[in-house]
Amino acid sequence: MSRDVLNSLADILEQRKQQDPQHSYVAGLYARGLDSILKKIGEEATETVIAAKGGDRAALAHEMADLWFHCLVLLAHEDLRPQAVLDELQRRFGTSGLEEKASRSR
Amino acid sequence: MSRDVLNSLADILEQRKQQDPQHSYVAGLYARGLDSILKKIGEEATETVIAAKGGDRAALAHEMADLWFHCLVLLAHEDLRPQAVLDELQRRFGTSGLEEKASRSR
Amino acid sequence: MSRDVLNSLADILEQRKQQDPQHSYVAGLYARGLDSILKKIGEEATETVIAAKGGDRAALAHEMADLWFHCLVLLAHEDLRPQAVLDELQRRFGTSGLEEKASRSR
Amino acid sequence: MSRDVLNSLADILEQRKQQDPQHSYVAGLYARGLDSILKKIGEEATETVIAAKGGDRAALAHEMADLWFHCLVLLAHEDLRPQAVLDELQRRFGTSGLEEKASRSR
Repeated sequence: MSRDVLNSLADILEQRKQQDPQHSYVAGLYARGLDSILKKIGEEATETVIAAKGGDRAALAHEMADLWFHCLVLLAHEDLRPQAVLDELQRRFGTSGLEEKASRSR
Repeated sequence: MSRDVLNSLADILEQRKQQDPQHSYVAGLYARGLDSILKKIGEEATETVIAAKGGDRAALAHEMADLWFHCLVLLAHEDLRPQAVLDELQRRFGTSGLEEKASRSR
Repeated sequence: MSRDVLNSLADILEQRKQQDPQHSYVAGLYARGLDSILKKIGEEATETVIAAKGGDRAALAHEMADLWFHCLVLLAHEDLRPQAVLDELQRRFGTSGLEEKASRSR
Repeated sequence: MSRDVLNSLADILEQRKQQDPQHSYVAGLYARGLDSILKKIGEEATETVIAAKGGDRAALAHEMADLWFHCLVLLAHEDLRPQAVLDELQRRFGTSGLEEKASRSR
């Protein structure tokens, strides 16, 4: 279940705040600060685009996992839970929700 | 539960493949093709970065929902389920997984 | 000559600050503010990546022109001249400059 | 003059095609291929956005130089000259050109 995956991962990312930046990649990102996390978001989004254009579906799933992973790191850094994003997504669909989103997004 | 949100949304996005591009934002994206979806990924990733730098957590959750939404559209377009990404995420954490990811990602 | 192109364009973009946002695309970008310009940077960078992956060199030149154009709009918005970027580029090359850049960039 | 900067840099980048990837950052990028160059475009575009949001004009000029530099590497890799992009930019402005661009870009 994705709830378990995203929430379990969020729990782990929360614990990483206590760890030594020398021994944890995520603690290292926190220590270097917001900009270093945001840089990874841009990087992984670009790699997702490259993988999709390359037509390799396994690479696409892999790069999107990297993107979502760093999104979760960003949320943890900002003291937000993945549920905040999922709630926002849920609010948008239903009978009219998904299409309401369309008009705002275009 | 996020599983429900992501999977329910994936089901809706699958159904949109049958709809008229004139009446559905998502059907319109499918009709315009892969590049138009990838363009949205880049756009929403940038907006996520901008919102985070702006320090507005509600805006951040909102923009990240836009990013994840278009990630789900991309997965649907490529006939992948969100579970493929969640499986990839799950494979990476556990005792050694998260830090193993670190070495590959740096 | 590129100096003429970039500087002439910078002059035009400066003049656009006086224009009506209703009648000028650039004046409209200025009026909507920094975030709207940055969003275009992310968008056009993504389109450059997509065009390059697509293997169409004319499309690549076209999208890169869009990217540089919005870079010039960003510079104008921040009261910087393209020369500031060119000076920075120039500082980096020469006998050792380009490779010195490498170590900082990696 | 920017023509000199961009064209001189393009000449240097052309020469780098003959160099050892072990000793030249740019030769290393060429050796790793298109995707590694495109990844840098996405990365540096994101860093440009972050610097602009941070309000540091020197950092902005620095990051935009990184972005333009990797744009020039991409052009060299695709056997294009910077003039191709400058020509495209020039085509767009003049009495009506800049605003014509607007309608296509929006």
